[in-house]
Amino acid sequence: MAGAANQHQTPESPPLLLLHRFPSFNLYFLPFLQTKYTVLDPFADPPDPSFPTLSKSARVMLCFGPTPVTSEDLDRYPSVEYVLGTSAGINNFDLAACRRRGIRVTSAGDAYSDDVADYAVGLTIDVLRRVSAADRFVRAGSWPVQNEYTLGSKVSGKRVGIVGLGSIGSRVAKRFEAFGCSIAYNSRKQKPHVTYTYHANVKDLASDVDVLIVCCALTNETHRIINKDVMTALGKMGVIVNVGRGALIDEKELVELLVRGEIGGAGLDVFENEPHVPEPLLTLDNVVLSPHKAVLTPDSFAALEELVRSNLEAFFSNQPLRAEVELN
Amino acid sequence: MAGAANQHQTPESPPLLLLHRFPSFNLYFLPFLQTKYTVLDPFADPPDPSFPTLSKSARVMLCFGPTPVTSEDLDRYPSVEYVLGTSAGINNFDLAACRRRGIRVTSAGDAYSDDVADYAVGLTIDVLRRVSAADRFVRAGSWPVQNEYTLGSKVSGKRVGIVGLGSIGSRVAKRFEAFGCSIAYNSRKQKPHVTYTYHANVKDLASDVDVLIVCCALTNETHRIINKDVMTALGKMGVIVNVGRGALIDEKELVELLVRGEIGGAGLDVFENEPHVPEPLLTLDNVVLSPHKAVLTPDSFAALEELVRSNLEAFFSNQPLRAEVELN
Repeated sequence: MAGAANQHQTPESPPLLLLHRFPSFNLYFLPFLQTKYTVLDPFADPPDPSFPTLSKSARVMLCFGPTPVTSEDLDRYPSVEYVLGTSAGINNFDLAACRRRGIRVTSAGDAYSDDVADYAVGLTIDVLRRVSAADRFVRAGSWPVQNEYTLGSKVSGKRVGIVGLGSIGSRVAKRFEAFGCSIAYNSRKQKPHVTYTYHANVKDLASDVDVLIVCCALTNETHRIINKDVMTALGKMGVIVNVGRGALIDEKELVELLVRGEIGGAGLDVFENEPHVPEPLLTLDNVVLSPHKAVLTPDSFAALEELVRSNLEAFFSNQPLRAEVELN
Repeated sequence: MAGAANQHQTPESPPLLLLHRFPSFNLYFLPFLQTKYTVLDPFADPPDPSFPTLSKSARVMLCFGPTPVTSEDLDRYPSVEYVLGTSAGINNFDLAACRRRGIRVTSAGDAYSDDVADYAVGLTIDVLRRVSAADRFVRAGSWPVQNEYTLGSKVSGKRVGIVGLGSIGSRVAKRFEAFGCSIAYNSRKQKPHVTYTYHANVKDLASDVDVLIVCCALTNETHRIINKDVMTALGKMGVIVNVGRGALIDEKELVELLVRGEIGGAGLDVFENEPHVPEPLLTLDNVVLSPHKAVLTPDSFAALEELVRSNLEAFFSNQPLRAEVELN
C-alpha cells in the first residue's frame, strides 16, 4: 500500500495524511502537521489537484470530531490502515467495517476527560442551585423588584447516579465524593475494585438516585438508554445531566417530562440534532443549555494535539498506539 | 430581669421571644416558635399593644438575617441577655456593645456552610467554563448561527486561593482538591494541622493563584480586603468568586478592572449595596451574578430551624449554646 504512495512521492517525501472532515471543522494545529506530513484535504481551497490520486494511497485518515466514517468512505480510500479519531466518542465510525478491513482505530482517549467531568459537575450544581437562572434574574433587573427567589436544592449529600463509569464517569464520581454525595452507577459490567453501588439496569439506578449523569459512549446498545421509564423512575425532583451524546436520551420524552414538571430539571450539553435545541427548552427555568462544549478548553486542545502528534509518530514507526479502540 | 416579664405574664406563660427584623424579612418556622414562646413582633399586623411593655422584659432577641443590632437597639430592650443571629456572618451586630453589656451572641454557625461551599464551587466552574454564558448563547438562538464559541478555561489543576479558611473555606478547599486543584489560603493566623500553603497577606496569595475565593467574615480588618493591588496581583486571567459579603471587595475597582479586562472574570453572590448591582456588570459576559442566595436551600433552612430551636431551649434551660461567638 505504501508502494502506491511511492508512485507519486519520492521515498523521502513526508508520509501522506488524509483529512476526513466536515467543511466547517478545523484543527488549530494543522499548520504543524503540514510541516511533518503531506496533508491531503478534500476541502483544500484552492482544491488540491493531487488529492484524487494521492488520497487512494493514504494509510492514515485523521477524522475531525463527529464526521462520520462509513463503509463507502473506506471504499473510496482503499489504503487506509488507521483511522485516527479526535473525539472521545466514536459512534460516528462504522466500527464493523473497520474491523472487517483490519483497520485500527484510536479515539481522543482521556484527553478530554477532566474537562468533561468538570463540566458535568458544573452543570449539576447549576441546575440544582439554579446558578444560570440566578444570573438571568439579576441581569433582568428583577432583584430589586421581586423579593422572593425560587429556592435551589442542596448539592452536598445528594445521591448521584452515573451512567457509564469510564474515564469521564469515574472522574465525575471522584469529584462528587468530595461533596459528601453517595455514588451509584450503571455500566455493561460491574467494575472490579470499585466500591460504588452497581445497578445492572439503568431504571434501577434511576430509582435509587437524585441526579443521573449520562456519560457513556453512544452505541447500538445505549441508543436512548434514558427512556421514559428511566426518567419516570428518577422522579419529580430528579435531575438529568447529559455530557455524552444527545441520542443517549429519548429527547422528545425528556422535553415533555420537563415541561410537565415530571422530572425536576436537566443540564444538557448535547442534543439529538445539534445545533437544533428543542424549542420548549429555551424558555424553561429549570434547565441549563450548552452548545456541546464540555470538551472545549485550550488545555483539552493541547492534550489532543499531543495525542495526535504522538500517535502519528507511533504509527509510522510501528510503535504501539495510545487510546486504541478494541474492535472485537 | 425575668421578674419584669412576670409582671405581665403568669409564671406558666411561655418565655418572651423578641423578634428583631426588617419588615420584609420573615422566618417560615415562626408559627412553630409561637407555640412555644410569647413572640413579640415590632411589625405585627395588627400591631401588638403589649409590645412596648413586654419587649422591655425580653431576655432573647431573635435577629433575622442582616438586620442591624445597634447600641441604641440594646438601650431600647434593656433586658436582652442573648442575641440569636440567623446569618453565618454577624457583621450587622455591634459586638462591642454586646460585650460591654455581657450579652451572649450566636450565629448560624455552619448550618449554611455546605451550601455556601457548593455554591462557591458552582460559581467558579460557571465563570471558568462559561456555563451561564453558554446557556445565554443557546437561549438567544445563536448556536445554529455562530459556529465559534469563546473557549472556557480548565477547572482541574487550577491553583485555588481561599480568603478565610473557616467553616466555609475549608469545605471549598476539600471540594477543589477532588478536581486536582492546589490550595493556598490567607487567614488571620496559619491553621495548625492544615497542609495547604499559607500566605500571611492576601496580595501574596493573589499572585500565587488562578482563582481567589472570598469567604471570610466581614469585620473592620477585612473591609475591602480585596483592593485594587490584590486584584492586580491576581492578574488578567485571574477569577474572583465572592460568597462572603460585598464590602470585602472594593467593588468600584472590581468593576473597572473587569470592564478593562484586567482581571479574567468574577462570580458574585454578594454586592456592596444589595439589591443594587453595578450597572456595567449586567452586560459583561465574563461574570456570573447571583442575588445573595448561596445559603438558600430548603436544607439550609431546616438546619437553621433546628439550630434556632435547640439554642432557644438551651438558653431557657441554662444549657450551653451552639455556634456562640467569642466576644473577647
